[in-house]
Amino acid sequence: MTTTNGANYKVIGTRPIRHDGIDKVVGRAVYGGDVRLPGMLYGQVLRSPHAHARIRRIDTSKAAAVPGVRAVVTADDLPAVEDKRMDLGEGVVRLKYLRDNVLASDKAVYKGQPVAGVAAVDLHIAEEALALIVVEYEVLPPVVEVRQAMKEGAPLLHETLTTKELGEDTKNKSNVASHLRHVLGDLAAGFARAAVVVEREFNTATVHQGYIEPHNATAMWSLDGQLTIWTSTQGAFAARDQVASVLDHPVSKIKVVPQEIGGGFGGKITVYLEPVAALLSRKSGHPVKLIMTRPDVFQSTGPTPGSYVRVKMGVDQSGKLVAAEAYMAFEAGGFPGAEIGAGAMCVFSCYDVPNAQVDVYDVVVNKPKSAPYRAPCAPQAAFAVEAVVDELAEKLGQDPIDFRLKNAAKEGTRRVDGVVFPRIGCVETLQALKDHPNYKIPLGPNQGRGVAIGYWFNIGFKSSVSASVNEDGTVNLVEGSTDIGGSRASIAMQFAEVLGLAAEDINPAVVDTNSIGYTDVTGGSRVTYATGWAAYEAAQDVKAQMILRAAKLWEVPADQVEFSEGSFIHKGSDKKLSFKELAAKLDDTGGPVVGKGNVKPNSGVGGSFAANIVDVELDPETGKVQVLRFTVAQDAGKAIHPSYVEGQMQGGSVQGIGWALNEEYYYTTQGEMANGSYLDYRIPTSLDLPMIDTVIVEVPNPGHPFGVRGVGEAPIVPPMAAIANAIYGATGARLNELPMRPDRVVAALQAQAAH
Amino acid sequence: MTTTNGANYKVIGTRPIRHDGIDKVVGRAVYGGDVRLPGMLYGQVLRSPHAHARIRRIDTSKAAAVPGVRAVVTADDLPAVEDKRMDLGEGVVRLKYLRDNVLASDKAVYKGQPVAGVAAVDLHIAEEALALIVVEYEVLPPVVEVRQAMKEGAPLLHETLTTKELGEDTKNKSNVASHLRHVLGDLAAGFARAAVVVEREFNTATVHQGYIEPHNATAMWSLDGQLTIWTSTQGAFAARDQVASVLDHPVSKIKVVPQEIGGGFGGKITVYLEPVAALLSRKSGHPVKLIMTRPDVFQSTGPTPGSYVRVKMGVDQSGKLVAAEAYMAFEAGGFPGAEIGAGAMCVFSCYDVPNAQVDVYDVVVNKPKSAPYRAPCAPQAAFAVEAVVDELAEKLGQDPIDFRLKNAAKEGTRRVDGVVFPRIGCVETLQALKDHPNYKIPLGPNQGRGVAIGYWFNIGFKSSVSASVNEDGTVNLVEGSTDIGGSRASIAMQFAEVLGLAAEDINPAVVDTNSIGYTDVTGGSRVTYATGWAAYEAAQDVKAQMILRAAKLWEVPADQVEFSEGSFIHKGSDKKLSFKELAAKLDDTGGPVVGKGNVKPNSGVGGSFAANIVDVELDPETGKVQVLRFTVAQDAGKAIHPSYVEGQMQGGSVQGIGWALNEEYYYTTQGEMANGSYLDYRIPTSLDLPMIDTVIVEVPNPGHPFGVRGVGEAPIVPPMAAIANAIYGATGARLNELPMRPDRVVAALQAQAAH
Repeated sequence: MTTTNGANYKVIGTRPIRHDGIDKVVGRAVYGGDVRLPGMLYGQVLRSPHAHARIRRIDTSKAAAVPGVRAVVTADDLPAVEDKRMDLGEGVVRLKYLRDNVLASDKAVYKGQPVAGVAAVDLHIAEEALALIVVEYEVLPPVVEVRQAMKEGAPLLHETLTTKELGEDTKNKSNVASHLRHVLGDLAAGFARAAVVVEREFNTATVHQGYIEPHNATAMWSLDGQLTIWTSTQGAFAARDQVASVLDHPVSKIKVVPQEIGGGFGGKITVYLEPVAALLSRKSGHPVKLIMTRPDVFQSTGPTPGSYVRVKMGVDQSGKLVAAEAYMAFEAGGFPGAEIGAGAMCVFSCYDVPNAQVDVYDVVVNKPKSAPYRAPCAPQAAFAVEAVVDELAEKLGQDPIDFRLKNAAKEGTRRVDGVVFPRIGCVETLQALKDHPNYKIPLGPNQGRGVAIGYWFNIGFKSSVSASVNEDGTVNLVEGSTDIGGSRASIAMQFAEVLGLAAEDINPAVVDTNSIGYTDVTGGSRVTYATGWAAYEAAQDVKAQMILRAAKLWEVPADQVEFSEGSFIHKGSDKKLSFKELAAKLDDTGGPVVGKGNVKPNSGVGGSFAANIVDVELDPETGKVQVLRFTVAQDAGKAIHPSYVEGQMQGGSVQGIGWALNEEYYYTTQGEMANGSYLDYRIPTSLDLPMIDTVIVEVPNPGHPFGVRGVGEAPIVPPMAAIANAIYGATGARLNELPMRPDRVVAALQAQAAH
Repeated sequence: MTTTNGANYKVIGTRPIRHDGIDKVVGRAVYGGDVRLPGMLYGQVLRSPHAHARIRRIDTSKAAAVPGVRAVVTADDLPAVEDKRMDLGEGVVRLKYLRDNVLASDKAVYKGQPVAGVAAVDLHIAEEALALIVVEYEVLPPVVEVRQAMKEGAPLLHETLTTKELGEDTKNKSNVASHLRHVLGDLAAGFARAAVVVEREFNTATVHQGYIEPHNATAMWSLDGQLTIWTSTQGAFAARDQVASVLDHPVSKIKVVPQEIGGGFGGKITVYLEPVAALLSRKSGHPVKLIMTRPDVFQSTGPTPGSYVRVKMGVDQSGKLVAAEAYMAFEAGGFPGAEIGAGAMCVFSCYDVPNAQVDVYDVVVNKPKSAPYRAPCAPQAAFAVEAVVDELAEKLGQDPIDFRLKNAAKEGTRRVDGVVFPRIGCVETLQALKDHPNYKIPLGPNQGRGVAIGYWFNIGFKSSVSASVNEDGTVNLVEGSTDIGGSRASIAMQFAEVLGLAAEDINPAVVDTNSIGYTDVTGGSRVTYATGWAAYEAAQDVKAQMILRAAKLWEVPADQVEFSEGSFIHKGSDKKLSFKELAAKLDDTGGPVVGKGNVKPNSGVGGSFAANIVDVELDPETGKVQVLRFTVAQDAGKAIHPSYVEGQMQGGSVQGIGWALNEEYYYTTQGEMANGSYLDYRIPTSLDLPMIDTVIVEVPNPGHPFGVRGVGEAPIVPPMAAIANAIYGATGARLNELPMRPDRVVAALQAQAAH
C-alpha cells in the first residue's frame, strides 16, 4: 500500500528490477570473500581469551618459525604516532582506541580483541601458527553491565580515560567516557503542571546487526607504499581514512576497492581486519586475505550497545504532554563511542513536549566495542518512551494512536536538542496506521495489540556521482556509495528521471576510492537522499552540456534550446532530438559528455517516522510470543523505488522483532559470550514471522529535489516497544527488559498473578 | 641530450618515477593473465591448420561430451546480424570480417584462424576436447604474397570482395580491397623539369609487434546479459564496441576492465579472444579465461603488412625535389584493412615536393589479418623513399642531411594528401642530427653510415579524465587510456603543472569503461597529446572550483581570487592559501571537488619527425650486420617526461633494427609460418644492440596547451632506411628487401662484385 503525493514522475515511484539483482540472485556478484590475487597468502587473527587483561608480553618467535608462515604482526608493528581524536563519518573516536581495537597493545578489554595476526601460504598453517604465539596475560576482573561499570570502585577499563561531563573534561578516571545533556523549557515547571506522571526503568541487551557476510579484507602493500585493500565495507573512503590513521599512511597512497556487501547495518564502517591485512602484506611482501569466522564476528566486531534507560513523562488534564525526562546509559563496549548523541536527539522527537531533559552516558564495559546498528541508540530510547507513552494513554483512557496524534511532533516543533522541525510526516504516519484495516481486526484470547512510533534523521554528508553518456544514449553512472539495500537503483532512477531515460538505461557502478570524488559511508539513511541528490546534480550537468551540443549541431544560440519531455528542442523551429538521438551525435559535436554531481546536503532537513501496529499471541504456559500481524507505516518523503522502501521497512521490522524477542549477547560473569554462533544467537527466520504489512506515506522532504527522505533506519526504532505494548495488551504485564524471552514473559505473568 | 624550448615549467620536463613503476618492476602489477574469478573455467581455441580452406562442417559433439567440458562454441553461436562497416578507432572494417576473424564461419583464410572454442574446468581437459572437434575442410590453394595476390587468376580469398577503386565500388571480384590515390600538382610536368630521377622497387616482410604478453581475455556473462570482460587491451572502449558489434549486444551491457598491458604497439586493439570468452561464458554460465600461446600470437593476431613499394623521385639542377611518385601495395592479411591511408599520408611528408602522386593498395593474402604496428604503413614507405632520397643526394654529390634539409617540409608545406603543415620540427630535427658528434666520428673498414627521416602524425580522438581532490591536497586522477609507455606519468604531470602540484601528488588510475567518459585507444601517438589535454582541462576545472571555494571561505567575490604560483590569493588583501591548505577546507565549503576534462582535439595539428644516424659494420664473409652506433633525434613538441620520450625513441629504434635486419614471417608455400616462436622469430636483444643515443628536439605543437607532440610512433619509421643506407655506405650495395638478412647481404655483395 502506498500513499502517493502526486508529482508526475515517469521513473520515480516505479519498480524496475535492480541493476545488481540477477547477479546477486544467481551468485555472480563478487563479494570480499571472492577476491583472489596472484601469490595471495591467508591470514588468521589471534584474539584475547580474556574479557579484561593486561598484556605483559607477546612472543611470536615460534609462530614465525613455522614453515609456510610468511609474517606475524602485533601492535608493535603499528607505527608510533601521536594519539588524536578523529571523525569516522558516524561518530568520533580516539586513535589509540581505534588502534587497540585493531591490535591490542597494553590491554585486552574484551574477549575476542585482536592480539596478533599471522599470514601463511594456507589457512591451516596460519591456524597452527596462531597456537604457537605465547601471550602473557595478567587477568583482571571484568565488568559487563553498564550500571555496574558506572559504580564507584568498578574495575576501570582504561587508566587514562576521564569523564567528559557536558563537554568538559573532569579529569576523573572512570568508565563513563562522556555525559551529554539536552534541556528544553522548564522541566520542573512542566512536571508541576502534570496531572498524570509515569516513570519507568528499562534495560536492553547487547545485540548484533546479524549480517550474513562475515568481515573480510584483502590487502596488497607495494614496495612504493601503495596500499590496495579489497573489502566489504559500508564506506570505502571511511575505511581508507581509518586505515590511513591507524597505519599513519597518507590517504593518497591507499586505494580501497569496495566489494559487494552481504549486509552491514552500521557494523561495517569500523575497520578491523583491513589494517592487519595491510601490515601482514607489508611484512610478507604478498597480498594477504583475512576473513572472520562467525564467532569472530559476534565477539570481535561492534554490536549495538546494551542500555539502561529511565524515562519519566507527564501529561496535563487535557492529555497534552507537558514534561519528559530521560536518563540513558549506553554500553560503548571496550572503547568509548556509543552513538549517544543520536539517542539523545531521537528519544522524544516524535512528540511536541515543551519541557524536557535528556541525560545520556557513554560507558565502557568489557564487551566488544559497539558499532552503529541501524538508527543507533534510537531503538533503546523508543523502547522506553513508547512504553511510558502507552501507559499514559491507558491511564487517560485514550486510544494509543489518538494520544500520539494529539502530541505528535510537526512542522515548527522544537526538539529537546533545540532543532525546530521543518515539514515532517509524523502525524501522517500515525494517521495512516489509524486508518489501516489491521487496526480494526478483532483479537482473540491471549492476543494483544501494541502500537509505537520511532524517528530517525538523515545524515547529509558528502556524496559524489559522475555520469558518462554512451553513444547509444545509455549512461554509465559512477558512485562511491556501497549498495546495501538497492541504492544502485534508487540513485540511477533519480538520474534517469531528470533526463527522461528509463532506469534500465543507466548502468550504476560502485567504484574504488581512486575513481570517484569523496563519498561518505552508506549509513545515516543518507544514500538515496544525498547520493541521489548528487545523481540529480550530475544529470542536470549532463543536460546543460547536451543543450550546448544541440545548439552547436543546429548552429543556434544555446538559450534557444530547451529540454522537455525527454527531448532537446529548438524553440525557434521544429528541430528536435531525443536524448538518445543527440547522444549518437556527441562524437561529432565535441566528444564525450560527462556530468558530475558533488554534494554535501544539510543533515537537518530530512528525517523519517516509522510506526507499527503489532498483534501477538502468547502461550501462557511457555511464555512464547508469536507475532500474528505486523504493520509498519513510514514516511518516505518520496519513495523512489517503492519495493526497496518496503524492503527496508520489512527488514528493519524483522530486526526489531528479533531484538524484541530473541536476540542478546548472553554473557558469563567472566565476560565470555556464551552464544556466539547463529545456532545459539537466535535471529528470526521466515518461519518465526508473519508477512510484514507496509504503508508508504509520502510527505516530501523540503530539503531534497525529489522530496526524498532516507528510510533505512527508522523502521527498526518502534518494533520493540510495539511488541512490548502488545504483550501488555495480551497479558496486562509490562515487560521492561529486552529481549522479552519466554522465561521473562512467564516470570512477568507469575509476578502479575502474585500481585 | 635535450634541446629545450624555454617555457618555465615546474613539473613538465622533469623525470619523476612513474606511478606504476615499482609495481611493474617487482611483479605486483596485475595483468590479464592474473585475473582469477570464483568458478572460473579455462578455455582453448581450435584454429585452422590450413591457410586457405572452405569449412564444410564442424562437429563438436565429441568434444562437448568430454567430462569437465562446460561449453563448446563455433561461429554458429554468434547471433545472426546484418553485415555492416564499422569504425574501430584506427581504421574501418566490415563486421563479417571482424566476426570471421573471431570465429571462422564459411572459410578459413589463414592458418591459425579460430574455428571453435572450448571451456572446461581445466586447461588440459579443454585441450583434450579441442582434439575431438571434427572440422571438414576443403583445402584451397593459398596466396601469401601481395603481388601474386593482385594478379589476374590468383586464388580469391573472399567471393564477395570487390575492389573499391578511388572510393568507388568497381564490383570486380578481386583480392584488392581498395585502391587510394593522392595527387598534388602536375607529376608529369615535375618529372619533365627533373635533372636527376631515381626509381626503385622495394619489398618488406610481414613482421610482428613482438609484445611480451600474449593476448588474454576473461569474460563473465551474467544471466541478465551484463557482460564483463577483463583483458589487456590498448582500448577498453574500442574492445567494448567491437564485442558489442560481434555479439550484437548493447554497449551499455558490456563493461571492459582493462588490465595492465605487456606491450601492444597497435596489436592489441582488435578483439580476438574477448568474444569467444564471452560466448563460452554465456553458454557455460561461468567466467571463462582464455590466453594465447606464443605461436597463437604469431599466427592468429595481427602483424604489420608485408609490402611491395615502388618509388620514383626527381630533382632539378639546384637539388630541389620537383616530383615524387609512389606505388605501394600492402598485405592486409586474410581480411581487408591495412592502414594504407596512413602510408599514403606519410610517404612523402618529410619533403616539400610540389608535384606528387601516391597510389596505395589494400590487398588480402592468406596471412593473419594485419593490425596496426607503430606508425602503421609509414616504415614500409620510408624504407623506399629514404633509399631513393639517399641515392639522389649521392648522385648530386650532396651530404645526405644537407640534401634533406634543403628539401625538408616546413610550416606551409602542402603534403600530397592536401594538408598544409602548421609549425613542425622537420628542419630542427635534421639540424640536430647534423650537429650531433656521432655524425663526425670517423669510420673504419667495412663500416658505413646511413641517415634517414620519418614522419608520423598525432591522432586526436576522444579522451576523458576526471580528478578528485583529497583532503590532503593530493588528487585522484581517473583516465581511460591504457598506459603502455608511461602515460600515467605524462598525463598526471600535465595535470600537476596546472595546479602547482608535484607529480607524486597525483594518483593516476586507468579504470573500466563504466567508470570514465569515452576514451579512444592508446594508439596514433595520441595519449600524452589528447588525454594529457583532457587532464589539463580537468585541472582547469578543479582550479575554477577551488577559486569559488576560496572566495566562499573568505567571503569575497570570486573574481577577486586568483591562482598564482601554486596558491589561491585574494587580490584585495594578503589572504593566501596553498592548494593543499585549501584542499583541507573543502569539507567546510561545500564538499568534494571533482574536475573533469573531455576532449576531442584536432588530429591534424600534431605530428612528429624522427631521424637517425646509423653506423654499421659488416662481416663480408657471413653478411652479418652489426649496428655500431644508433642516433635518433625527434621532435617531441614539448617532452613532458623526457625519460619516457627517450624510451619511446629507443624502443621504436630497436623495433626498427629488428625489422631491418632479422624479423620476418617465414612462410612455406602452403601458407604456414615456419618460425612462430621467439626462438625462431628473432627479435633483437640487448646483446644485439648498441646504446641508442637520443636527441629530443622541442618545436612546440601549436595545437596543444603545452605544445606536446605524440612521440610513440615516429621513431620506428626511419631505422630500416637508415640501416640500408649505412649498409650501402659500407658496401656500395643497396639492399631493397626487408629483412636485410646475412644471406641477402652476401648475395648483394656478390652481385656487386660480379657487376
